[in-house]
Amino acid sequence: MIEQAQLDEAIELGRAQALQYAALAYYRLLEPIAGYPRGSVVLPDGSVLPGYPSIGRIQSLEAGLPRQFHRPFWAEEKIDGFNVRILRWAGTIYAFSRGGYVCAFSTDRAPDFIEPAVFDAEPDLVLCAEIAGPDTPYLEGSTPRVERDVALFVFDLMRLGVPGFLNQTDKFALFERHGLPPAPIHGHFEPRDIDALGKLILRLDAEGAEGLVLKTDDGRERAKYVTGGSCIADIRACAAQLLDLPPQYFTNRLTRLAIFLAEHPEMDRKATGHALGEALLAGLGEAVDKSRAQGRVGHVYRCRFREQASARRFIEHMRTTGGRHVRIGTDMPRREGDYWLLEFERVFDHMTGTLSSALAGDHQYD
Amino acid sequence: MIEQAQLDEAIELGRAQALQYAALAYYRLLEPIAGYPRGSVVLPDGSVLPGYPSIGRIQSLEAGLPRQFHRPFWAEEKIDGFNVRILRWAGTIYAFSRGGYVCAFSTDRAPDFIEPAVFDAEPDLVLCAEIAGPDTPYLEGSTPRVERDVALFVFDLMRLGVPGFLNQTDKFALFERHGLPPAPIHGHFEPRDIDALGKLILRLDAEGAEGLVLKTDDGRERAKYVTGGSCIADIRACAAQLLDLPPQYFTNRLTRLAIFLAEHPEMDRKATGHALGEALLAGLGEAVDKSRAQGRVGHVYRCRFREQASARRFIEHMRTTGGRHVRIGTDMPRREGDYWLLEFERVFDHMTGTLSSALAGDHQYD
Repeated sequence: MIEQAQLDEAIELGRAQALQYAALAYYRLLEPIAGYPRGSVVLPDGSVLPGYPSIGRIQSLEAGLPRQFHRPFWAEEKIDGFNVRILRWAGTIYAFSRGGYVCAFSTDRAPDFIEPAVFDAEPDLVLCAEIAGPDTPYLEGSTPRVERDVALFVFDLMRLGVPGFLNQTDKFALFERHGLPPAPIHGHFEPRDIDALGKLILRLDAEGAEGLVLKTDDGRERAKYVTGGSCIADIRACAAQLLDLPPQYFTNRLTRLAIFLAEHPEMDRKATGHALGEALLAGLGEAVDKSRAQGRVGHVYRCRFREQASARRFIEHMRTTGGRHVRIGTDMPRREGDYWLLEFERVFDHMTGTLSSALAGDHQYD
Repeated sequence: MIEQAQLDEAIELGRAQALQYAALAYYRLLEPIAGYPRGSVVLPDGSVLPGYPSIGRIQSLEAGLPRQFHRPFWAEEKIDGFNVRILRWAGTIYAFSRGGYVCAFSTDRAPDFIEPAVFDAEPDLVLCAEIAGPDTPYLEGSTPRVERDVALFVFDLMRLGVPGFLNQTDKFALFERHGLPPAPIHGHFEPRDIDALGKLILRLDAEGAEGLVLKTDDGRERAKYVTGGSCIADIRACAAQLLDLPPQYFTNRLTRLAIFLAEHPEMDRKATGHALGEALLAGLGEAVDKSRAQGRVGHVYRCRFREQASARRFIEHMRTTGGRHVRIGTDMPRREGDYWLLEFERVFDHMTGTLSSALAGDHQYD
């Protein structure tokens, strides 16, 4: 619970924001307040949906497992998508983004993947899920686990008003009982199972998967560990934004890949290097081609909504938060089969400016 | 000329610095003063050695040549080394770094490459030169133009107290008359000679050269244009400093390489990508290996001095400016043939910290 007086003060200080989505009036926290992390959501009765906590990353199994785990743990697949928390409030299902906004896209599409009846049986349940696939409004890349459109993978459960996650036993039981689509489970391990997890991560790498989230039964010890290939895939997907993303986006992945190669000497180092270089130049080459062809560098996102009203709400949200970087055609959303299709472009300012100046023959000083 | 009162005020404000090298008392400018750029040097009589001006870079021949050049120009090779300005003052030859320090290394070694007699005939002459090769105290990489030790390449001449550079005709005449070692000259071109310059840069690329500096006869229109391979070579040499150099060091070179490939479709794009990826992983892999083996990431520089006193002055300068990042053995400098050998290590703090934490199994949040 957060008291209204505390919320009002936080809004005054720019630490919380009052928002409205259709009939729902809610607040999102931009900073930690009353012990709740940023991204937490305050519902009309003052109850709080906590922000999804960051999971620490380990970069070495050999050193990281004994250091971070003191009990057995489950290895669940980390799906490369975006994180939502889904709940039902006053009869309506909402999906909240990591930042604490109602996500119009995920809210619209959630019923494609989960039976609303789960909330009849478990009214206070919160599903923590990844939405992934080629057709999302947020991601440039996709995952081999979703061939078309999007899919939803539940990986954690919470109960509104109860701190922490449900334990693994209860989580798996509820997945089963309500047919919730889980992130793939890859087994139960001990902290000493370094070789077995090494083999598993190399198999996932070969399949193009992102990696693993390791969780003890009570969920208190957690860590993520990703494949070398996911570093290259991310770099490929985002190289056209090289000058627009924080440089750490790239330097973190490069460093991580080098450590992954050092820990897995059985990998083909040469082929990995080749794939990395091709990924960088493919993305950058596309940026140069776009700059030459249309004078700007951007990415076109494509996604589908069940309801036209959801698409309109999504457009409104993009216009408010993305400003002039977002270009949406006046014919959007457009009917496509049973869905409403939305395509829009996000323009990368720094790439656009730097490339157009370079290709115009300007002098550059660096 | 800069008046003493103006200098004193600049020192007070931290915009200039009073320095002493052996018998020479001089000042260097940390900010532009009285129309002189940063890196300018004020000599004991108040005469000023101007800072070497940045040369604008073009990234496209097709667009850049007509935009930046309105007269014929010379194409001189850009050598991958460090820039010094060399003059004689009160009977002694000094070499100043880009930042305006007397460089003990270059000052010591200059007589290996230029006849001091040039300053008998031309007492006010200033040689602008690149010092390059595998054995420098500043550079991680080298150039195929210098097989061992270092060499010196003169590319511009100035006269103390006279603004601007000598024109190309006078420069070449003085090079000839005094046996000054020039940066290689690759011909005289018109702004329309895009194809010929394209062929030239691809030949230089194949030879592993850095690129070209283009200069009109009067030196007023100038531009540099580098090979794609030089971007990869720089990335290879500095990948072990990925988290310590400004990220722009890497993003500029990646962008430049992509533009170079787009302008030269005859290049083997796939092979270039492979070379880029191998370069990144080779440098990063060395960093991981060093972190594992010795708990720190750094680079060992090696260079040779004629005089022991010069090496000691260089060590003193490193200790003052490099602080705790520079590790120099107590047995340095060490006699090696006719020279004094200096080896020292520069430690890369961010790589050292990040890799040692990752390899220790720490949780990382990004």
